Amino acid sequence: MKNQQDLFVKMVLDQWFTQEKKTSDLFIELTDDQLMNETSPGKNRGIYLLGHLTAVHDRMLPMLDFGAQLHPDLNALFLSSPDRTMDLPAVADLREHWKEVSQTMGAKMNGLTGTDWFARHTAVSEEDYLKEPHRNKLNLIINRTNHLSSHYGQLLYLKQK
Amino acid sequence: MKNQQDLFVKMVLDQWFTQEKKTSDLFIELTDDQLMNETSPGKNRGIYLLGHLTAVHDRMLPMLDFGAQLHPDLNALFLSSPDRTMDLPAVADLREHWKEVSQTMGAKMNGLTGTDWFARHTAVSEEDYLKEPHRNKLNLIINRTNHLSSHYGQLLYLKQK
Repeated sequence: MKNQQDLFVKMVLDQWFTQEKKTSDLFIELTDDQLMNETSPGKNRGIYLLGHLTAVHDRMLPMLDFGAQLHPDLNALFLSSPDRTMDLPAVADLREHWKEVSQTMGAKMNGLTGTDWFARHTAVSEEDYLKEPHRNKLNLIINRTNHLSSHYGQLLYLKQK
Repeated sequence: MKNQQDLFVKMVLDQWFTQEKKTSDLFIELTDDQLMNETSPGKNRGIYLLGHLTAVHDRMLPMLDFGAQLHPDLNALFLSSPDRTMDLPAVADLREHWKEVSQTMGAKMNGLTGTDWFARHTAVSEEDYLKEPHRNKLNLIINRTNHLSSHYGQLLYLKQK
């Protein structure tokens, strides 16, 4: 049954790394100019989604007990404010932050054991976790993988026809 | 350990049903006119994504050993042809098909045991499955949930501001 736990963790992490790689590849393919475009008229620009995904993933580090956020300054710009309301950092800096968060997360994720993944994530209290054991670290990954996919679908619209 | 298997399955199915419900609610909220709009200039229209998601989910029925596809006629229109190249069915009919596929799938999914979910899906041979046991039914759900999320992100663009 240890095998099945490892298998399940692999299934979930494979999907995370697949979506993460697709998105990283897309960010590399898109030029700075393309990232300044709106994904659809009046909707989020590429640069905003790049910052937003970086901030959401960065905030997962403390939630997974992987350490402090690397760029907590991004939260105010990309989590609590909509696009076009704040002065944003340069695209080049955001590209660097994305890569750094992505690599840090990947390295930490690969270091966890199957059992670690079934422990609660830090945004859930011990008490709530006992009642709702599905609120574990792996479930956070399932959730955030789908969040990433939904924005990936939007970012695809920035590609050249 | 039986409990942990049930917990895995719950985590994956919860995410499927969450994304499925969000998408169904969005289709109900969008008017027929909104569904005729493009999600972004030159990109797929709402009606095409409605048909595409219905066809992709319908095709999961045989893959999960849940029976034959309900609407195999949708495959040519929404899986092998891009938008604006074929005459599409009426939106009202597609809405019905989506609901029917969604309900059929949901009922069948709720009927499987934890062990059933770790069996191979029918698009994988017995031989390949022995070498790659992660290619099971539950993994297909993980995969298709992310596919659904990516199109959900695009469909959101059809909403009124």
